[in-house]
Amino acid sequence: MAAFVERLQAACGKTRSLVCVGLDPDPARMPVPDVLAFNRAIVDATADLVCAYKPNMAFYEGLGFEGLRALEGTMRHIRERAPSAVVIGDGKRNDIGNTAQAYAKALYEFWGFDAATLNPYLGGDALEPFLAYADRGAFLLCRTSNPGARDIQDLPVTEGGVTGPLYLAIARKAAAWNTRGNVGLVVGATYPEELKQVRAVCPALPILIPGVGAQGGELAASLRNGADAAGRLALVNSSRQVLYASKGRDFAEAARKAASTLREQINAVLVGMGKPWS
Amino acid sequence: MAAFVERLQAACGKTRSLVCVGLDPDPARMPVPDVLAFNRAIVDATADLVCAYKPNMAFYEGLGFEGLRALEGTMRHIRERAPSAVVIGDGKRNDIGNTAQAYAKALYEFWGFDAATLNPYLGGDALEPFLAYADRGAFLLCRTSNPGARDIQDLPVTEGGVTGPLYLAIARKAAAWNTRGNVGLVVGATYPEELKQVRAVCPALPILIPGVGAQGGELAASLRNGADAAGRLALVNSSRQVLYASKGRDFAEAARKAASTLREQINAVLVGMGKPWS
Repeated sequence: MAAFVERLQAACGKTRSLVCVGLDPDPARMPVPDVLAFNRAIVDATADLVCAYKPNMAFYEGLGFEGLRALEGTMRHIRERAPSAVVIGDGKRNDIGNTAQAYAKALYEFWGFDAATLNPYLGGDALEPFLAYADRGAFLLCRTSNPGARDIQDLPVTEGGVTGPLYLAIARKAAAWNTRGNVGLVVGATYPEELKQVRAVCPALPILIPGVGAQGGELAASLRNGADAAGRLALVNSSRQVLYASKGRDFAEAARKAASTLREQINAVLVGMGKPWS
Repeated sequence: MAAFVERLQAACGKTRSLVCVGLDPDPARMPVPDVLAFNRAIVDATADLVCAYKPNMAFYEGLGFEGLRALEGTMRHIRERAPSAVVIGDGKRNDIGNTAQAYAKALYEFWGFDAATLNPYLGGDALEPFLAYADRGAFLLCRTSNPGARDIQDLPVTEGGVTGPLYLAIARKAAAWNTRGNVGLVVGATYPEELKQVRAVCPALPILIPGVGAQGGELAASLRNGADAAGRLALVNSSRQVLYASKGRDFAEAARKAASTLREQINAVLVGMGKPWS
């Protein structure tokens, strides 16, 4: 089976899109009461426009068994309507030894995600049970998009005589851990300068970039700084901006329009970079 | 409602125990095939000997809906048989903003845990939705018990002119974040020296200490170094050593014996420290 990075490139190429839609169903904001019906409508409206979906586990877990059943149905629906899309289980999990093994089984086998977001704080051996699945992606938190990210992630660390922020040390380790073509990083769009530094350290890793739109990240700067030399491997995630583009009955149509606009904005930046889709 | 640390002290005092039993059901090792039946037997056998239970979310999630239903039943059973026990949802979760809010709701409201283990990498604002529940505990990963912990947690960071390992910087922040009496830390028993340093920085925080037994942590050193000045606030977690004390039909009896032995060993150390239960 192909390494994850190849599957991801294929999904992007097929849709000519670097857009990932975050499926964060919030009953307080959804225009229809049923999570599965809402997600189905969003997927149907965006399937040809996006390379990836990113269900955020917290929103399903927060609704208990009902939420988890809706996630199960959502996964089935994505596989039917968008079979080439990469589905990223956004759970920011990790643990050690046999526990990490159990999480990998839950995320990659029970839920069947193509990739997962993971927290790297526990170190390389804790990531190994995930990385052993070469066809599944492991997006490691590097620099998150929240203001408090600086509390820990920006602390200056010294390693091998070099001093720099912790998130860059993690980026360097991620590059070293990527022996199977399946490690990626998460770097918020709210910090385009940090994205540039991370990309310099990790020229070949996919970077998942949340924080565009609702969180105010600058799209063009994030893309120019986050893409690889070929203008690829930057996944721009949008959740609320797409899901809640309208709170009316036209929500699916509005979501399609928002996803399409984002895809076109991204593709225009790629053209400006001299890296259009072939 | 009492702050979490007071609830924890009450649970320890009532059972004269610092033992936490980790409920990590592994079908490959369980002497009975049914997770709920297994957990019920373990709880019944240990209810009067332990101050806390720690279901490890990964093992339930790895079994899909069946596993999660078993966790639901386990929670109900613990509340019936060990009403004063503190139940720690060991999920090592975290995320930002409204996502952290959804996790807090899942852990503290849907599952009803008294405490949760959380990953601090995302910073203070990401922890706030959890800390807002003053009667629930937030145990932040500080120094984990796996060999790879050193990859990130031991990196030398410089802050306020002081250079030291990252885990100590996190311990200092944890002490500052503890404005409501509900922050705790996780420090593996496999590193008694690190426990001593963390305790010096956080004299008043509960420390959850996994890694005793199956992982080879030294009990006496961990306890002497991890307990507070009163010989309390160190929770010694044992999972496999108790759960799989016997693989035969006498597993519950063997689990009781293992938990009882650990409790007695701990209490003997407390006597040696001049801090017996009153």
